[in-house]
Amino acid sequence: MSDTTPADRLAALRAELARQGLDGFLVPRADEHLGEYVPARADRLRWLTGFSGSAGLAIVLADKAAAFTDGRYVLQLAEQTDPALWERRHITDEPPADWLAQHAPRGGGIGYDPLLFSEEAVGRFAEKGAALVAVQANPIDAVWVGQPAAPMAPALPHRIEFAGLESARKREQVAAALVAEKQDAAVVTDPASIAWLLNIRGDDVPFTPFALGFLVIHADAGCEVFMAPEKVPSETRAWIGNAVSVQDRTALPGALARLKGRRVRVDAGGSPAWFAQTLRAAGAEVVAGMDPCMLPKARKNEVERQGSRNAHHRDAVAVCRFLRWMEQAAGRATEMSAAAKLVALREEVAMFRGESFPAISGSGPNGAIIHYRVSEDTDRAIGADELYLIDSGAQYSDGTTDITRTVWTGPGAPPEEIRARWTRVLKGHIALATLVFPKGVCGPHVDAFARAALWQVGLDYDHGTGHGVGSYLSVHEGPVSISRAARAIAIEAGMILSNEPGFYLPGGYGIRLENLILAVEAEFPEAAKPFLRFETLTWAPFDRRLIDGALLTRAEVEWINAYHAQVEAIVGPGLEGAERAWLAGACAALR
Amino acid sequence: MSDTTPADRLAALRAELARQGLDGFLVPRADEHLGEYVPARADRLRWLTGFSGSAGLAIVLADKAAAFTDGRYVLQLAEQTDPALWERRHITDEPPADWLAQHAPRGGGIGYDPLLFSEEAVGRFAEKGAALVAVQANPIDAVWVGQPAAPMAPALPHRIEFAGLESARKREQVAAALVAEKQDAAVVTDPASIAWLLNIRGDDVPFTPFALGFLVIHADAGCEVFMAPEKVPSETRAWIGNAVSVQDRTALPGALARLKGRRVRVDAGGSPAWFAQTLRAAGAEVVAGMDPCMLPKARKNEVERQGSRNAHHRDAVAVCRFLRWMEQAAGRATEMSAAAKLVALREEVAMFRGESFPAISGSGPNGAIIHYRVSEDTDRAIGADELYLIDSGAQYSDGTTDITRTVWTGPGAPPEEIRARWTRVLKGHIALATLVFPKGVCGPHVDAFARAALWQVGLDYDHGTGHGVGSYLSVHEGPVSISRAARAIAIEAGMILSNEPGFYLPGGYGIRLENLILAVEAEFPEAAKPFLRFETLTWAPFDRRLIDGALLTRAEVEWINAYHAQVEAIVGPGLEGAERAWLAGACAALR
Repeated sequence: MSDTTPADRLAALRAELARQGLDGFLVPRADEHLGEYVPARADRLRWLTGFSGSAGLAIVLADKAAAFTDGRYVLQLAEQTDPALWERRHITDEPPADWLAQHAPRGGGIGYDPLLFSEEAVGRFAEKGAALVAVQANPIDAVWVGQPAAPMAPALPHRIEFAGLESARKREQVAAALVAEKQDAAVVTDPASIAWLLNIRGDDVPFTPFALGFLVIHADAGCEVFMAPEKVPSETRAWIGNAVSVQDRTALPGALARLKGRRVRVDAGGSPAWFAQTLRAAGAEVVAGMDPCMLPKARKNEVERQGSRNAHHRDAVAVCRFLRWMEQAAGRATEMSAAAKLVALREEVAMFRGESFPAISGSGPNGAIIHYRVSEDTDRAIGADELYLIDSGAQYSDGTTDITRTVWTGPGAPPEEIRARWTRVLKGHIALATLVFPKGVCGPHVDAFARAALWQVGLDYDHGTGHGVGSYLSVHEGPVSISRAARAIAIEAGMILSNEPGFYLPGGYGIRLENLILAVEAEFPEAAKPFLRFETLTWAPFDRRLIDGALLTRAEVEWINAYHAQVEAIVGPGLEGAERAWLAGACAALR
Repeated sequence: MSDTTPADRLAALRAELARQGLDGFLVPRADEHLGEYVPARADRLRWLTGFSGSAGLAIVLADKAAAFTDGRYVLQLAEQTDPALWERRHITDEPPADWLAQHAPRGGGIGYDPLLFSEEAVGRFAEKGAALVAVQANPIDAVWVGQPAAPMAPALPHRIEFAGLESARKREQVAAALVAEKQDAAVVTDPASIAWLLNIRGDDVPFTPFALGFLVIHADAGCEVFMAPEKVPSETRAWIGNAVSVQDRTALPGALARLKGRRVRVDAGGSPAWFAQTLRAAGAEVVAGMDPCMLPKARKNEVERQGSRNAHHRDAVAVCRFLRWMEQAAGRATEMSAAAKLVALREEVAMFRGESFPAISGSGPNGAIIHYRVSEDTDRAIGADELYLIDSGAQYSDGTTDITRTVWTGPGAPPEEIRARWTRVLKGHIALATLVFPKGVCGPHVDAFARAALWQVGLDYDHGTGHGVGSYLSVHEGPVSISRAARAIAIEAGMILSNEPGFYLPGGYGIRLENLILAVEAEFPEAAKPFLRFETLTWAPFDRRLIDGALLTRAEVEWINAYHAQVEAIVGPGLEGAERAWLAGACAALR
């Protein structure tokens, strides 16, 4: 990224900290939207340490420095960073706040950029006694030679045929929610929320089609958007209308100052601390509350639901062609070439806009690395008689997809142990897919259904069962997720979630079976209260060679047969000749 | 209780409030231990309002008054209170704090007895702007003519053959937990915790064999117990030893004052606010934390586990004899006579010490009243061809039992709808009974397994699935319960829980099927982490006439057959002649 060495960069930062009178500095892997994907300009952690994982934090003191990441990336952290410069730490086993408490000089001021930490995150350091100092400007930006410019992709209209509801109606709904809580305004710092609220899409970061910016919505439904004006072409200005003023990012502090005396909602966990700090300094009353777009965005309207069904029907054609291609891939393809093949097939699909996340393409032992990202260094030839796991997704103008299949590469038959475990993962998938539940039930209450068949024999998987998915937006969307660790927020009709149980034998193989599911009202005319069920959105066969029928109940066999019949009905007409014949075999009924 | 009328009593209280300069007063259904069963002396709510339910609150203002209870008791509240004196309210639909905020005079001081509310409960009123004033002495006690004396049952040793662990060892464990959290002492206000810690049992309230008192445990494992000395006979003084000083209740304020400058743990939700208030006023640092006996008490040791198994084996004989008797009860017994019959049969069981709660004996539509308590007024003849629900339990020196069965009274066959719903309740019971799960899983994460079969057809039940159970102690014991509303506290080996799904058709019938289950380690030698499973403790047949085999999986049928075989093996040897023959039929294998 530049011709300076990691040692040069660390030394330059330390010199800058000394100049600013700071005894240390915190460097998170975050931009000022605290999002999952950050533009190159904001990837300060990577510039400083060399570490390219998607989660981590560095702490720089005058005489020592440490870099932290989670279990997914500890090996990568060790490979990419210089042990002479960095202590490498597991972020949950040895929390950064503890490390800092142990190593920071007594009474020393530790700088942090308040645009890159939420108030909750700052609180975790403060709890351990850290003397944190919010910096006015990020000291890394002062020493980063050749720091990339901020992305300037245009924000473009997301047409009503995809959005389903006019922005003005959405703004009225959000404003009504503020009025109900006696709030005068809310700050929105998540670009996905802004994309939803204004019916716009952008291209500032990979994989998620939003435009970076900030927004203030007032209780009268008026909105101020803070985004470089050159990112907003006249077509978009006309689309978002006069009730929304577009101002440069530099106008943001002034706009917050104008909220003096007002009650303003800020998301304490999702928004940078800078917002609450700036508002309080200006004399506003800050009220902690969820981003007001979060829940309405998650509840897809009828047009978005139908768009997602349509996108999944088209995506399924590419995925099924890929699965057929994979049957001959052993010995001829590698993990990278397979992932590229799937992208090439998706590029033939109407309205394809790109991948929704970097595909996980893992064969044999690489399948056991839950967030494996194949690279030139790790690329592995796909061998005979092993498991191959492909977790991938696409962005279409009408919807976002995310699917995982784990297949047997053949030509031999899979071992009993693998079939038994694969089948238990499938049982978990079916248990969640067929669950019916009353309104009010939350993600943590249903996660275990996807695990019980594995638990029964002392097995489990170390990740959540499902995440929310956006509508041509983030493939990981809050606020609901299916995980015991998730907040207890009710699943509601219109929410799209993933259903992805798995099993991983480190050094051996990985199994994951994922469809997206849409929560819909269940029809029980005589029920005393409303119930929900899941509609499956994703259509691609599960590898029949891996199904151990002896482990399935009759109801589970019927579910698979009905699912496969539907796959054939949906995908078959889009295939021809040998591909169509292959699909018929892959979807043949069990027993 | 006295010959004054409810109007007299309300007038007397208002006069006393005026004398004390208070504009109102809060009267909860609680004693100074905030427990489930209160001694007659503390039943101020009943004295004042006439309402005898086990949960409620009254608010008395100068010109109006309201009484609140939950859904179980709204009808009873309406019957037992005078509408000319009391507005009657649903405690969750119209929370008392809201009612008070609406009706209290501006700036008026509303009294409350800080011995009868936790700090959390006080906080709920304060949040709504109430100006609460802690009273020094309860004004009801000043006007209650003939208030019963405090109970004075002796505290007696709970022998080591039942307790399994010496009190000195328990005190060391608790003290170590305080040291680990850098706390100097903890206040224990739950008499069940004191009973567990000191290996004593008492008889001050119905159904739960503890002695009312308070305790302070210090980080050096020394204990001070505050309890009328006449309740502690010399045998008990010798039993608890010299490291525990017994002081009169009146010595408590002085003991708390001696904690000046110390860090003291107080349970903010489980202890009266008076403790934290008194400690803070004395200059102690109050740290909110769970009663330190709560978790160790819930984790039954090996002796307690075996005691519970033994108690359940004996209890099962009485229950099975009762179930046989019930088969001829239609037209001859009433709900009250049936409950009395079950008590009479239990009185024949070795070590029986009384019921563990008032039995719920409901036939036909009364079965749908979840917390039905039969009385002379409601007693109903048990009819032919209806459902009869009996939820009862017993205290034995070696364990506490709690079982519910729902049987068909015959002689006809049960209708299809009833069989189908009863069978779905059974499926839920089996799903939880057979669940295997890793350490760390909490009650809210598994509750839904007991409901899924009902949910599948749009049915549910409006109560939690299970509660903790003590060892010859409270039949409702914290801190773990199987409920979505419960705190996320992990289920641990040794915990005894109830498994009691149900279904209730108001005005029609009620179904509940309850066994106690013991969490134990599951043996998976190769598992990557520890797993738990449930061992069933309760042994009595499920009514085979109500089982709809078509709704069961093969695994469920096998579970029932194995369970019934075990019932016969355990209970059969304790029965003779016709009773033994009946049991064999009731336990015959399905299909």
